[in-house]
Amino acid sequence: MRLATIQTPAGPRPAVRVGDYFIDLLATAPDLPGSVRGILEGGADALRKVSEAVKRPGATRLAASSVKLLAPILDPHKILCIGLNYRDHAIESGSPIPRDPVLFSKFATAIIGPDAPIILPPVSTKVDFEAELVLVIGKPGRNIPRDRAMDHLAGCMVGHDVSARDWQLEKDGKQWLAGKTFDTFAPIGPELVTLDEVGDPHALGIRLRINGHTMQDSNTNQLIFRAEDLIAYISQVVTLQAGDLIFTGTPPGVGAARKPPVYLADGDIVEVEIDGLGVLRNPVRAG
Amino acid sequence: MRLATIQTPAGPRPAVRVGDYFIDLLATAPDLPGSVRGILEGGADALRKVSEAVKRPGATRLAASSVKLLAPILDPHKILCIGLNYRDHAIESGSPIPRDPVLFSKFATAIIGPDAPIILPPVSTKVDFEAELVLVIGKPGRNIPRDRAMDHLAGCMVGHDVSARDWQLEKDGKQWLAGKTFDTFAPIGPELVTLDEVGDPHALGIRLRINGHTMQDSNTNQLIFRAEDLIAYISQVVTLQAGDLIFTGTPPGVGAARKPPVYLADGDIVEVEIDGLGVLRNPVRAG
Repeated sequence: MRLATIQTPAGPRPAVRVGDYFIDLLATAPDLPGSVRGILEGGADALRKVSEAVKRPGATRLAASSVKLLAPILDPHKILCIGLNYRDHAIESGSPIPRDPVLFSKFATAIIGPDAPIILPPVSTKVDFEAELVLVIGKPGRNIPRDRAMDHLAGCMVGHDVSARDWQLEKDGKQWLAGKTFDTFAPIGPELVTLDEVGDPHALGIRLRINGHTMQDSNTNQLIFRAEDLIAYISQVVTLQAGDLIFTGTPPGVGAARKPPVYLADGDIVEVEIDGLGVLRNPVRAG
Repeated sequence: MRLATIQTPAGPRPAVRVGDYFIDLLATAPDLPGSVRGILEGGADALRKVSEAVKRPGATRLAASSVKLLAPILDPHKILCIGLNYRDHAIESGSPIPRDPVLFSKFATAIIGPDAPIILPPVSTKVDFEAELVLVIGKPGRNIPRDRAMDHLAGCMVGHDVSARDWQLEKDGKQWLAGKTFDTFAPIGPELVTLDEVGDPHALGIRLRINGHTMQDSNTNQLIFRAEDLIAYISQVVTLQAGDLIFTGTPPGVGAARKPPVYLADGDIVEVEIDGLGVLRNPVRAG
């Protein structure tokens, strides 16, 4: 199933993509939760009701071309991010292969959806791009054993870990948070694809294009720490909640590692594509 | 005004402390917002209504000794933290005085209130203590000028930045997040004191005691970056929202800087006290 959040006159609403249509879930079944996060919080029962609503003959269908998509999850409790999780990217960054996942975070104020502009902050001159596979937690948990971890994964989506390198890497204290969490620096979407439809999240082509030019082109089979490793590791520290996001790290090809470096510029169009998950497209605007 | 969250049979509710009593706001005025964060989101208008409710002759009063306090804000959108923000603590940590505020974060899953146990994670052997003044945002904003920053500050409270030093400092990537955000690692309370009652937040004695022994004893006049500096700096990066918390950093005396080091142990009682804001007391338990 492909869960989305659509803009409607009544506000953001959960929807399901079926071919060239979106089913407006609340128009079809008003008793369903009012958001994608709410559906995930409802667990298997809510997902079954969504699946039934989608099949109703009278379901409210909207042509995909007429729908404005928002971020699939607007207000996650947590956005966890993993650094240096592709072997080749760790090498291009001049960093050793980490022994444990490197954890940092973004705030939900950074989230934007498809087609919304990435705003270049006037205080940064080095805004870089990072294509990422995003894991979405379904079942909550703490101290989740690795062999049960995939039971806690609701699905996956495309994400873009926009990164102001000057704020990430050149400040005292060397904490990455600020450079990673400027408003608009967490584009996600177009849809949250449930795990049954993703198949193996560790065998997906992942690409990033700027103005049509391919800048990153890899495969999630290059991940150092896999979904189950990350869920088990992170849940030693925090209670994972339904709707929490894990940005899993980026493959090689980022702008800062190029000679000369390439940074995002006003007017650029960035597309991140992952096999089976779709294309996340965002324009770039000067702030 | 001293805003608190109290446990009631109907769930957590906002309250105001008046002397030895708490006024149950929803029992007194059911049209008020259902949480302290909701009151802050309502701005000056909501605060005026709260202030009026507190003065009603029929206000529902509960003896402080009978009330179970929760964290004043249970679910902030953001918890920002500042590293190395007391001159003497930067020196004891062997770190240079930072040129800009060092930003990191905790997740809301780390929040606990007064008297709730700090749980020592089995995966850490170096859980340290840090007394902190916590700023609470009232009016939202982005790119807030320094000379308007104090208009965005609703008030202050006592906080404890519990820190697993092994996870904070000894992992690849050197990101502090994991070590700072274990569940229960963000005790706050007992009350959110509004700015009119705090007076100058940069002239408050701040102390931390373990089992009655004073471990930290300083004054917020030692802060390198003041409230207005932090609000202006952070709002260059993110949109600040009502209820967002800023842990402002800790004075000297932390356990890791002692010879030999002192870490929290099962059965310890930690008290953090700030002049005019009260005492935040939490027991420590092995996880």
